[in-house]
Amino acid sequence: MKSYAHRIERALAQAHEAGLDGLLVTPGPDLVYFTGYQPTAITERLTVLVLVAGRDPHLVVPVLERPDAEAADGVAAVTLADWKDGDDPYAVLAGLVAPRGRYALSDSAWAMHLLALQLAQPSVRCTSMTSTLPMLRAVKEEDEVERLAAAGAAADAAYEKIVGVRFAGRTETGVGTELARLLREFGHSQVDFTVVGSGPNGANPHHEMGDRVIRDGDMVVLDFGGLKDGYGSDTTRTVHVGPPTAGEQEVFDVVRAAQQAALEAVRPGVACQEIDRVARQLITDAGYGQFFIHRVGHGIGLTTHEPPYLVRGEEHTLVPGMCFSIEPGIYLPGQFGVRIEDIVTVTETGGRRLNNTDHGLRIVA
Amino acid sequence: MKSYAHRIERALAQAHEAGLDGLLVTPGPDLVYFTGYQPTAITERLTVLVLVAGRDPHLVVPVLERPDAEAADGVAAVTLADWKDGDDPYAVLAGLVAPRGRYALSDSAWAMHLLALQLAQPSVRCTSMTSTLPMLRAVKEEDEVERLAAAGAAADAAYEKIVGVRFAGRTETGVGTELARLLREFGHSQVDFTVVGSGPNGANPHHEMGDRVIRDGDMVVLDFGGLKDGYGSDTTRTVHVGPPTAGEQEVFDVVRAAQQAALEAVRPGVACQEIDRVARQLITDAGYGQFFIHRVGHGIGLTTHEPPYLVRGEEHTLVPGMCFSIEPGIYLPGQFGVRIEDIVTVTETGGRRLNNTDHGLRIVA
Repeated sequence: MKSYAHRIERALAQAHEAGLDGLLVTPGPDLVYFTGYQPTAITERLTVLVLVAGRDPHLVVPVLERPDAEAADGVAAVTLADWKDGDDPYAVLAGLVAPRGRYALSDSAWAMHLLALQLAQPSVRCTSMTSTLPMLRAVKEEDEVERLAAAGAAADAAYEKIVGVRFAGRTETGVGTELARLLREFGHSQVDFTVVGSGPNGANPHHEMGDRVIRDGDMVVLDFGGLKDGYGSDTTRTVHVGPPTAGEQEVFDVVRAAQQAALEAVRPGVACQEIDRVARQLITDAGYGQFFIHRVGHGIGLTTHEPPYLVRGEEHTLVPGMCFSIEPGIYLPGQFGVRIEDIVTVTETGGRRLNNTDHGLRIVA
Repeated sequence: MKSYAHRIERALAQAHEAGLDGLLVTPGPDLVYFTGYQPTAITERLTVLVLVAGRDPHLVVPVLERPDAEAADGVAAVTLADWKDGDDPYAVLAGLVAPRGRYALSDSAWAMHLLALQLAQPSVRCTSMTSTLPMLRAVKEEDEVERLAAAGAAADAAYEKIVGVRFAGRTETGVGTELARLLREFGHSQVDFTVVGSGPNGANPHHEMGDRVIRDGDMVVLDFGGLKDGYGSDTTRTVHVGPPTAGEQEVFDVVRAAQQAALEAVRPGVACQEIDRVARQLITDAGYGQFFIHRVGHGIGLTTHEPPYLVRGEEHTLVPGMCFSIEPGIYLPGQFGVRIEDIVTVTETGGRRLNNTDHGLRIVA
């Protein structure tokens, strides 16, 4: 497949620039990116794609998963090196890497595989994909941006429906289950999370949903996403059951302004950490800095968390085609939380939102 | 919680015997085993439990996941070391391990975390949990065996129902979806796989299910499992649509005899690889050795693949309380496959099946 070959070529050029001899790609988004192959399960059995300049790509694969691997689009261009239970797969892998070679390894590769490789071939040096090749999948191709936009539009459609249902008197789980159903109805093949954080639960950014019955007067954080045609959605809106208090509205307005300011700071050449700083400065100036307890965003593509990370210390600069979340929040322990999140893509002239529902504090019933 | 404390104590004693200073436990089954804590998602944000003899257990956790961690049963006895986005979590971890210390690390820990720890504290030596502490979770407590038995009984109940449905004329996916529904109906909270390998698809042991329409005369491999009350089920039965040919019955009988012989070889003190050897010998003697392309079994507990592995080269011996699959198979490319799998627990006197449906070749409609 032309596109896979192109991706491998580009990755090897990046690896060369980074002083690496190649890439070791394990099951997950990296392997999908280079071959379209996704094993049924990621297990203790070693599967790894070895990419080295000037050599055919080699896929080390358990023999019993060979038929599945061969069925994947991009595997036709790959040489398979299979191994049987009872063989030593690390000896197979060690034979495919150069002594004293330097390789970038997929972030989520199992540590047991890395440790066994380090034993089998002690002179090999591995680094993590994110630390040495952070731009590997960060700049999206046009088709990828379109898929992310389609996933975003589907999430928007689900949101427009969910704000029409009754919240008061239902449990978070009741609303969340409905929201998951809507995401599937609008084309998601997989729902990864449906956060419904009502009242004080909204102050825990990773609260998913629970038995709490939503009440009149609650602020409710809705954070939802999954995969549509292989690409991720990830959207947050905060709604209120009935009219908010002036204090609640004030917090909401701060988050909304921070999200807008961060979006407006997006343009090619700006450092990733600058987007975080802009949002954080605004929230800090409003007196809520200590309650914004996470980075402002993360890349999205074949997974919902990947480079670029928009976080203090991340000096890589924005490039057209990058896609990431912008999601500032304020979390007041014991009271409520507010978060607003859009997926944004970098264009030549600035940032373009891939979520387009209204940013105002929507009043629900 | 008493049971968590006991597990930690036992693990540290094993670690001491193995010449280790402690354990580094990341999200997944190991962390559930020691604390009951399972983060919503396993991501690039570092979460790790540090277990060292004579010191309180410490859990390194992203601050935004702290409330979730605190809600887990076993975390009350653990000291939390939280970190914020933008901080260096590996510096936090490096501060909790001894220079030149030796630690066993969870198999599925992300390689990026290990590589970052190796950079932050180069004198630390890590080994994989399975290579140095293979017995960590392998010998089940009484309550664990009961849960595995209950999961097995639920899988048996689902099987007894599915053999009553019509196979001929339906797709593999149609039957598999029904089987997944039945597993849930009988108490599974999670279905991990429902293999429906009909006709030639059965010859691919990892074929899950597809659009193929099942026909009269097909051999059909059904391999299904998931989690019930946190513990795994994993069962395979091979059925036939209408009466089999003499050749099909012969292959089936070989697999059945191999599965029975392997079960009868189970007793304390026997090497894991011996169970594989017994099944393989019988299949080889029957002339099908080259078509039995995987190990005979794997441990099961909080996950469906874990030590002990019953595979050539595995010299650890069986101990009462171990639980694992025995699942020989014969795969004839382009024709059909046969596999029979039970979960078995080691008792003082031999092996006891946790699946108890009939092993004969069931004829379905």
